[in-house]
Amino acid sequence: MFDPIEKLKEYVRCQSVSTDPSFQTGMRECREFVSKLLGEMSLEVEVIETPLHPVILGKRKGPSDWPHVVIYGHYDVQPPDPLENWSSAPFEPTIKDGRIYGRGTADNKGPLMVHLAAVASLLEESPDLPLRITFLIEGEEEIGSPSFNDILENRKEDLSADLVFLSDTGSPNESQMVVTCGIRGIVTLEAELTGAKTDLHSGIHGGALLNPIQALTEICHSLHDEEGRVAIDGFYDDIVGVEEWERQELAKLGMSEAEYLDFLGIDQFSCVPGFSPFEAVRFQPTLEFNGIGGGYQGEGSKTVIPSKAFVKISARLVANQTPARIEALIRKALSDRCPPGVTIKVDSGHSGAPYLVVPPGRPNTPPDQSNVLAKVFLAIEESVTRIFAKPPLFLREGGSIPIIADIKRVLGMDSIMLGLFLPEDNLHAPNESFHLGVMEKAIDVSKDVLRSLAEK
Amino acid sequence: MFDPIEKLKEYVRCQSVSTDPSFQTGMRECREFVSKLLGEMSLEVEVIETPLHPVILGKRKGPSDWPHVVIYGHYDVQPPDPLENWSSAPFEPTIKDGRIYGRGTADNKGPLMVHLAAVASLLEESPDLPLRITFLIEGEEEIGSPSFNDILENRKEDLSADLVFLSDTGSPNESQMVVTCGIRGIVTLEAELTGAKTDLHSGIHGGALLNPIQALTEICHSLHDEEGRVAIDGFYDDIVGVEEWERQELAKLGMSEAEYLDFLGIDQFSCVPGFSPFEAVRFQPTLEFNGIGGGYQGEGSKTVIPSKAFVKISARLVANQTPARIEALIRKALSDRCPPGVTIKVDSGHSGAPYLVVPPGRPNTPPDQSNVLAKVFLAIEESVTRIFAKPPLFLREGGSIPIIADIKRVLGMDSIMLGLFLPEDNLHAPNESFHLGVMEKAIDVSKDVLRSLAEK
Repeated sequence: MFDPIEKLKEYVRCQSVSTDPSFQTGMRECREFVSKLLGEMSLEVEVIETPLHPVILGKRKGPSDWPHVVIYGHYDVQPPDPLENWSSAPFEPTIKDGRIYGRGTADNKGPLMVHLAAVASLLEESPDLPLRITFLIEGEEEIGSPSFNDILENRKEDLSADLVFLSDTGSPNESQMVVTCGIRGIVTLEAELTGAKTDLHSGIHGGALLNPIQALTEICHSLHDEEGRVAIDGFYDDIVGVEEWERQELAKLGMSEAEYLDFLGIDQFSCVPGFSPFEAVRFQPTLEFNGIGGGYQGEGSKTVIPSKAFVKISARLVANQTPARIEALIRKALSDRCPPGVTIKVDSGHSGAPYLVVPPGRPNTPPDQSNVLAKVFLAIEESVTRIFAKPPLFLREGGSIPIIADIKRVLGMDSIMLGLFLPEDNLHAPNESFHLGVMEKAIDVSKDVLRSLAEK
Repeated sequence: MFDPIEKLKEYVRCQSVSTDPSFQTGMRECREFVSKLLGEMSLEVEVIETPLHPVILGKRKGPSDWPHVVIYGHYDVQPPDPLENWSSAPFEPTIKDGRIYGRGTADNKGPLMVHLAAVASLLEESPDLPLRITFLIEGEEEIGSPSFNDILENRKEDLSADLVFLSDTGSPNESQMVVTCGIRGIVTLEAELTGAKTDLHSGIHGGALLNPIQALTEICHSLHDEEGRVAIDGFYDDIVGVEEWERQELAKLGMSEAEYLDFLGIDQFSCVPGFSPFEAVRFQPTLEFNGIGGGYQGEGSKTVIPSKAFVKISARLVANQTPARIEALIRKALSDRCPPGVTIKVDSGHSGAPYLVVPPGRPNTPPDQSNVLAKVFLAIEESVTRIFAKPPLFLREGGSIPIIADIKRVLGMDSIMLGLFLPEDNLHAPNESFHLGVMEKAIDVSKDVLRSLAEK
């Protein structure tokens, strides 16, 4: 008998911090735990080496006419720092008030355990279930999944399936589940401006030359128009519009604008015209300045004209925007708008494509949507409605999960994303936790989804 | 017999770093050295306590109908860091190729020693010279002279004189001396913008709110017009214009624009219309961004919408601009231009008024210029022309020495500034040095100036 909470505790005790080489032992122990668990579930386990942290496959094979589902998850977690802000030890799982506390409980060990428990339970109940299942569990999600594309390309045969099922997104509260239907893409860049060859005395030389900070603020300011739109020709070309059903779905989210203002701690929103804040963060692309620096930043003043100044930029993309094209547009705008007297250097960072999948029966459902995908959408709606006593919301989300678009691009597969973490779960922060009530119910939803898949 | 080079060596050995409390012994030893030297010159020595580093007065008293000159200098020096970049120990004076190396040799121990040696020599030659002399030697110049105003206010009787004579400015090369006739004032401020109460995930919240970096670049960009002028109403009101003789004087400086471009390492200047770079840094006010910061500044990217962003601003002022008025204008512009959705907090830093004194016989010489001042201007011109074989240039300078305007404001006295340090002296940097040829000649110029003062 598979006890998901006890298994989750064991899983959380593995200190699988992928970004920090001093956690290598924890990463290995975590792989061993996952491999052993998959083995106990009678799945065929394969550990695929990568340049950094191996990927684990757990396969339930079967005849090729059985449907095939890939269940994605990741076994790596964020670093636990700052340790002093934790109420209990980050790698010693602690249950309190219906939640399990510990690093990775919500991101992504708890949600993955939901699907592991669902499969274990389902196969115990129905040992002959006609469904091929492949767990695809990576160890580099928290560092940007650098090996993931190669795995997709090299293991097409193992990973070609009817769809992907995963839980690495959120829901607004424990009674309102969300099925995530879209995620924004991302492009990151850094621009550095250089003026004089060294920092200069602003008294002796001030007035003779352009200050790179001044040039940088000129360029940055030019990137948005007065209404907050990104002011780069072509930036909004071809983007997928918003359907009325999506706005209506979002209106059921249950958070008021006043509550959102209060959560953010601001007194007014700044959204592009025609979009509420809840809509803007999901349906519109952005260009944000994530960091800026130059000159003297210490206490008091130091009257220099700095030699250099830089800005870190990221753009969030919506469906039909491609990272390469948007990056080229931003690069061109930065270069074209760099005033004479300073030079500019632009470096590219990571990027990822946006993703969109539309449930069946909507005005924007693709006419060629597969029967399997439509069936699973209906199954998850029916199951969540019954088990959580409230229909799920089918929503796009503002964050980025580049691997979902990669899977679609390389293998042509859509993903069904059941959002299991809640706003109070403290992902990437101290006192991360996962709601045990959500966990218990979600196991049943996962079983329903998998069962629906098995029904031809 | 007073050997200025041997005395300067002793003086430089005193480790008088005013900003670092661990140099207290050096500061005390330096005061003792200066006091002893003044005593050996038969001056009456008084050490005036201040909250931090005492001021030293050295007085040659006399009948009230004798002219009176205040000679200003400072005994404190900049920290010697980074030590590893010095070719010889910073506090072990070393003579090489006609220069003396060591921290403070040029700023300001060498130039002050010029005037000490001049007075010693003059009094040896003419023990009955009818001239009252007061050395005013402070120990807080490198930390902004925080006690200086109180000294001026409290010691008006001791310090009221016909004029101030000092050397704490520069000349372009060893054969071309400059008499500094104007210095720019300064105002410093820091503006901090706050958006959301914490840094936010740019995927989850991007599009809902104004990014404080974006708001900051909007405000900063608005502070200059397209031609580089400060775009704040009233900023240029009443500023003193530039006379043709000043432009002609500056044209004799001997540095070409190509040489200046090469020195700065830029390919073009950015000056307000109507001013060459050499003119702009002396005759025009500026508003510079000395530092900017906000969000993530480390390696790679972190996709936050920061809660805060800040900029450090300094304005250099020219004659007739007052720090209080300009600060109020900048504060108002910053507040007025802060877009809704973020809040702004502006903190004031140090400030200092500009200063201008015009030599006699120029179109802009004040009609009420004192005979003594006119006489000393003529004397220094004649003396430099003879001793350096080239007439001095009477120039305004771009830097700020707030105490000069303070002296004018509190005591009504003008200052005659003989520029003694050269561009290659490395002030505030490793391998600071002072040119011994300039030192030797300047002693004679100083004697001539003091002699002219004594002649009624």
